[in-house]
Amino acid sequence: MPSPRAVVLLSGGLDSATVLAIARSEGYDCHTLGFDYGQRHNAEIAAAEQVSAAGGAVRHRTLAIPIGRFGGSALTDAAIDVPDHGGGGIPVTYVPARNTVFLSLGLAWAEVLDAAAIFIGVNAIDYSGYPDCRPEFISAFQELARVATKQGVEGHAVRIAAPLIHMTKAEIIRRGTTLGVDYSLTVSCYRADGEGRACGHCDACRFRREGFATAGIDDPTRYYR
Amino acid sequence: MPSPRAVVLLSGGLDSATVLAIARSEGYDCHTLGFDYGQRHNAEIAAAEQVSAAGGAVRHRTLAIPIGRFGGSALTDAAIDVPDHGGGGIPVTYVPARNTVFLSLGLAWAEVLDAAAIFIGVNAIDYSGYPDCRPEFISAFQELARVATKQGVEGHAVRIAAPLIHMTKAEIIRRGTTLGVDYSLTVSCYRADGEGRACGHCDACRFRREGFATAGIDDPTRYYR
Repeated sequence: MPSPRAVVLLSGGLDSATVLAIARSEGYDCHTLGFDYGQRHNAEIAAAEQVSAAGGAVRHRTLAIPIGRFGGSALTDAAIDVPDHGGGGIPVTYVPARNTVFLSLGLAWAEVLDAAAIFIGVNAIDYSGYPDCRPEFISAFQELARVATKQGVEGHAVRIAAPLIHMTKAEIIRRGTTLGVDYSLTVSCYRADGEGRACGHCDACRFRREGFATAGIDDPTRYYR
Repeated sequence: MPSPRAVVLLSGGLDSATVLAIARSEGYDCHTLGFDYGQRHNAEIAAAEQVSAAGGAVRHRTLAIPIGRFGGSALTDAAIDVPDHGGGGIPVTYVPARNTVFLSLGLAWAEVLDAAAIFIGVNAIDYSGYPDCRPEFISAFQELARVATKQGVEGHAVRIAAPLIHMTKAEIIRRGTTLGVDYSLTVSCYRADGEGRACGHCDACRFRREGFATAGIDDPTRYYR
């Protein structure tokens, strides 16, 4: 019997690299999907390819998605600076409907592959406060997948798997390390330079640095300042 | 007080042209969104632009979305023929997760615009049996919009408006005619040629032709055979 297939959304960051390792450990043949959406930290696009290959995926696709042209986020609009701290509420690094768009495209590919699951590395503990990283978002998308697709109508809707959603960053890093993830390939920083080196000060860097420290695991992140 | 904004998904076909007229009649400033997704009937892309201008929209955007590269549909895969009749079940012209992807991108733009509504021309009466044209799909996407976005978290989630969902094709044509829609600009055919002329035999042509006949309104469709 062939292995079940999964689509794994891969940003090139720490979380999704861990999710790929988890999906592989559960026996899935993994088809990874990265996105070029006009993000300023585009070193993560190449990182996603490397993480896919190192993580034993069947194949990797990068889709160009023009949501950056809508603007409205510090991650896609050069006129809005990335702050050191997000502050209260939903921060300016929030990209409108980003995970909805990514999961929708994952859903399209999953249906063509007849995949059993879509994996996404959202996390609602050590995170920036984005609405589309919360458990209620994943539940709502699961229900949508059930009614929106031929797979769903036929009674085998794809499962939306978010294995990190209730884990701390330190727990994620420990789990990934156990599974052999090479975190030196990953890029988390919102202000990463062209070589994937990190600023060390944005929200994403802060959560990552504190995660390695709490986990008691050497942090392989390269910084440019 | 300025008019509320709406994003209107515009395929270039009869239904979405009618939806634009309905949204305008309800007082919305309309931002129309079309898609180049690798569809074989790409005359509809130019038709959408013309329908937008004729229908009084504020602006039109065409987004290139690479879902056609996934294959799996007669509308995007040259190796799969468009049949004259869809037959039972979900037909081969179904494009996996298409309306989910389109609404997701509409959601992203709506959030940046702070739009009050997203209009979509889905219809569950005279239709091809696609799962993502049904009322339960619209309800599930409405719930997703509530939890996925900053607008939703702040208590003013965008409304997903599907005003045609329970109308027959004849009712849609009568309503649009009353509102002044120029149906000669629209392209419905799955096998339309480069000039937007229709085959007259696919599901989309059949529903359209029967709609005009039942409505007792002259059919302006141009056929190539």
